[in-house]
Formats: sequence, C-alpha cells, structure tokens
Amino acid sequence: MMQAPVIAVIGAGEAPPDVLQLAYDTGCEIAGRNAVLVCGGRGGVMEAAARGAQERGGHTIGILPGYDKRSANPHIDFAIATGMGEARNAIVVATADAVIALAGEGGTLAEIGFALKLGRPLIALRSWPQLEGLYRADNPQAAVAMALAHSTARQG
Amino acid sequence: MMQAPVIAVIGAGEAPPDVLQLAYDTGCEIAGRNAVLVCGGRGGVMEAAARGAQERGGHTIGILPGYDKRSANPHIDFAIATGMGEARNAIVVATADAVIALAGEGGTLAEIGFALKLGRPLIALRSWPQLEGLYRADNPQAAVAMALAHSTARQG
Amino acid sequence: MMQAPVIAVIGAGEAPPDVLQLAYDTGCEIAGRNAVLVCGGRGGVMEAAARGAQERGGHTIGILPGYDKRSANPHIDFAIATGMGEARNAIVVATADAVIALAGEGGTLAEIGFALKLGRPLIALRSWPQLEGLYRADNPQAAVAMALAHSTARQG
Amino acid sequence: MMQAPVIAVIGAGEAPPDVLQLAYDTGCEIAGRNAVLVCGGRGGVMEAAARGAQERGGHTIGILPGYDKRSANPHIDFAIATGMGEARNAIVVATADAVIALAGEGGTLAEIGFALKLGRPLIALRSWPQLEGLYRADNPQAAVAMALAHSTARQG
Repeated sequence: MMQAPVIAVIGAGEAPPDVLQLAYDTGCEIAGRNAVLVCGGRGGVMEAAARGAQERGGHTIGILPGYDKRSANPHIDFAIATGMGEARNAIVVATADAVIALAGEGGTLAEIGFALKLGRPLIALRSWPQLEGLYRADNPQAAVAMALAHSTARQG
Repeated sequence: MMQAPVIAVIGAGEAPPDVLQLAYDTGCEIAGRNAVLVCGGRGGVMEAAARGAQERGGHTIGILPGYDKRSANPHIDFAIATGMGEARNAIVVATADAVIALAGEGGTLAEIGFALKLGRPLIALRSWPQLEGLYRADNPQAAVAMALAHSTARQG
Repeated sequence: MMQAPVIAVIGAGEAPPDVLQLAYDTGCEIAGRNAVLVCGGRGGVMEAAARGAQERGGHTIGILPGYDKRSANPHIDFAIATGMGEARNAIVVATADAVIALAGEGGTLAEIGFALKLGRPLIALRSWPQLEGLYRADNPQAAVAMALAHSTARQG
Repeated sequence: MMQAPVIAVIGAGEAPPDVLQLAYDTGCEIAGRNAVLVCGGRGGVMEAAARGAQERGGHTIGILPGYDKRSANPHIDFAIATGMGEARNAIVVATADAVIALAGEGGTLAEIGFALKLGRPLIALRSWPQLEGLYRADNPQAAVAMALAHSTARQG
C-alpha cells in the first residue's frame, strides 16, 4: 500500500494576518492535492495551515513539543506527543517528503537547517530571501506544486 | 473536533507465531472499536498489529527510530521519522491514550517504564507477570476494552 | 588520549535514607576508582551519588530533562541540558560504559530497558530481583568492581 | 559550587584550513579563559576546537549523534552519546551559556536557529553575514570575550 505524500508547513507560532492567510491557503492546496499536512501542531502558521487542510478534507499531523496531546490546535487529526521541546523540529522535517517555509524566527530557521541537512526539498513561500539552497514560490499553488514535484515520497 | 482515541501496541521486533497472532487480533480489535493504532513502525509485533488494524479499516501510526520513512512496515499509514533511535519509545507511549504490552525484551521494558512514568494506562496482555502497576488481560478484546475504559483521551 | 570509564547510577528522584546512603557510597567508590559518574542530574539517588563522587574528587555529569542548567543538583560538574524530558534516560544509559541500578520506579525501569536494549552492562544493587539479564551486587564496592570489569569503555 | 561557563563552538564537519585554524584558536582561547568547550564531538570545526581547548588544559564535551562513544574525535574528554541524530544540535546549544558560530551549512544553521529560539547569546565569527540577531566578532579573542560577557551562566 502506498503512503500519501506528506508536506510540512513551517513558520511562526504568532504571525500577522497576511501570513496566516498564506498558511491557510497552503493547507487547502495540500489537501486539495491529496497530500498529508505535517506541522508543529501549535498556533499561528501551524494552526492556519492545519485548518485549511482539514476543511478541505485532508489529514493533518501535529508534532508537539510536550507530552500533553491536548496542547494541539483543534485542527490536528493525529497529535504526536514528543516531549522533546524544540528538538521536535527535526521530526517535523524528517517526517515530510517536502517542506514549505513561511516567514518565521528561530524555530523556523532551525527547521530550515534540518531540511538542508537531511536533504528534504525546501520551498520558501514569499520568505527567507537571505538564504541559499531553497526553491522559491510566490503563491501557495506554486509552492505545493514544487513540493510534490520534488517530493522524496516513495513511488508506489 | 474530537480526536479518536489512540492505543499503542508494544512488543518485540521478532516474536513467535502465537504472539504475532495475538498482536494481529489486538490490531483488529483496536480498529473495530474505532481507535487509532500507534506503534514503533517496524516488524514483529508492530507489523502484525498494524496489519490487523489496517485490514479492519483503521488508521495506523508508526513512530520510526530513523530518518527514512521507507523503513516503516507496509501497514503504516502515517510514518513519523524521529531519528531518535531507541528513545523513540517515549514518543510511542506519550502519543497513546493507553498502552497494550505483549511479550518483549529491553525495548518493551523501556516503553513500560515510560508508561508508568508518564501515567499512561498500561495493559499487559498475557505477559510481564513479574511487573507491578499494570492492568492484566487474557485476550485482545478484554485488553482493548480496558484500554478504552482507562484511556486518557480528551472527552469531546 | 584515553577517556576515563563512565558509570551511570540510576534510581528514584525521591528515596528513603538507606537508599540515599547506598547511592552516596556508590558515588564515592566510582570516584575512588577514577571513573566518571553520569546520572540524571536531579535529586534523590542522582544527587546523593553525585555528592559522593564530587566529595572524593571525581567528575560528575548530569543529563537534565529540561533546557535550564540551573535545575541540576549542586554536585554536578557538567550539566547537559537536553530538553528531551523523560527520553533523556536513553542518553544517561548510552553515555555510560556500565550502569548501576538502585531501587526506583518508572523512570528507572525505562533506563534498565534501554541498558538491556543497548547492551550496556547492568548491575542491580540490592534491587530489581524480579528482572532478568542483570548482574547482582550486595554493596557499592562490589557493584563498582563489576561495572568496571564489564565496562564497554574503549581500551586505551 | 559554581559551574564553569560553557561555550559552544559550532561549524561544519569538513572545513578549509583557515576555518579550522580559527576553530583551533577559539578552542585555545576558551580554555585560556577557564571556560569549558562543548561541541558536536565529531570532525572538522568540532575537532579543531576541541584540540585547541584540550591542549590548553581545558575540559571538552562532545554531544554525539549516535550511541557509540568511540565515534568522538580524540580530543573529547566527556562524550555524551545521544542517539538523537541531527537533533543533538539542540542539546549542544542548550548546554552552552553562549555559542560561537563559524562558517557552516545546514547543521550549523539549525544550531543557530535553536540558539535564537532558546535565547542563548550567539556570536558569529567571520561568518553568517546574512543573518540577524547575532553579535559579530573578527577574531577568536573578541569572540570568546563577547561569549563570556553575555554568558547565561549562573553567577556563583
């Protein structure tokens, strides 16, 4: 049986409305293309993307920092309680077949670093112009198309 | 939206036929009761339980030791690539609302230790007579019923 | 340059006086034999063993669950801030060349499980009679002698 | 008893001679100022810094990705076997009171992200001009002086 491709959306736990809208639209597009969303499971970009994916009927996975699954945002289908704190970022990235990065801060930078290190395709969506080694997209449709094209998912 | 209860099945990566049958039947029962299975994602007890759950139409989560999702057994719907080695056992247990333990060795003992430490209800299915602090069941139906009765899942 | 052998002392964060005395004496013996002590860095058995080792002039390493090094007990020379919660138990054990287990509960059981899984020699000091696969000692001198004899430390 | 300040040196596992010389000099300076060096324990920048610190009589801690302590470079006094793969980067940073970053790639970027997230003071030594939120130094003496000045070490 073939697993569906899994796409991570990474970004800040608090974000301005335009970034949240971008995250929501990206989540919708991920589900619309029959991929699974993985994220850090908390608020901000993570919640907006999960809400978008869930409203379009997709599955959502949240990789939580703590041991309490109730800390997941309400749009997570499968909450993974890692207890690993910020190091959970490595699991978000490793679990994905491709990673879409929105604007963010230290935690997002750590996830970008892991994606580069682990060789996961990384698409910057209107963000991170100062970094090299990323694909670049101007809108959610293009970002998800790139993510699927470069996905490391096994071919069934 | 309410998350489905999640039940972990833990046990050895290599096991005799009667233990594998017990694991398979437990997976079937978990799915039959509309719960999600979580396990370590590899072979033996983990694969047998996942096969049972998947054949009954349930969802299966595999928490893998490495970074390669292709190391999951073929009955895992959602493979979580932790890269944490044996310490992933803590994530298997923390992600579950209740834990069912079959016969096993060091890795299983570590998971039992984490379940006791994290306060996850723990049901020994025809195994671990030497340990205290566990519920005890003689068959998969009783084990899953106990797991759901004592589950720490949030009440929707 | 040869690294000194490293011995873990594992046990409960709260313990009765006789167990704490046993932990203290074990720490003294570890330092007296020119080995390094590693432990979970917190109170109870961990603190008593570290105090013994430090008073005898030995080095002590504490593998902490959180990100705050100030949570170490005052007898830790080198505090490792893992942020991994209870999964740090795997690091305590993996960092040791041999493990001495005193009485304990879930966390200690998880460490014993990891030691069995990772193949680290494991000495039960007046404790854990219900488990198999451990060496057994009646006093700290015998426990440390067994730990050094079976140590996995590289031979310089 | 007061713990010595701990300074992390982060950078690539393979690096050109001028970067390795910079790492070596930084390690010397850390030990010369009576601080402890922590690093990822492997080759390249990590080994050069550890060699410098050890030759000046300082203590060195290596936070390893795997479970085998023999994978440490020969200048590590205390090898911590995490088994956590690349996520060990979070432990390197969290264990430090300040972080000095040399040129590097994905793994170094992840460590920088964690340092920003965890609030550890971060000094870029002739590197990472594209990133914000870092102090900047032109030579090892200045870098270590900044690291100690901004260190989060507890005041004895």
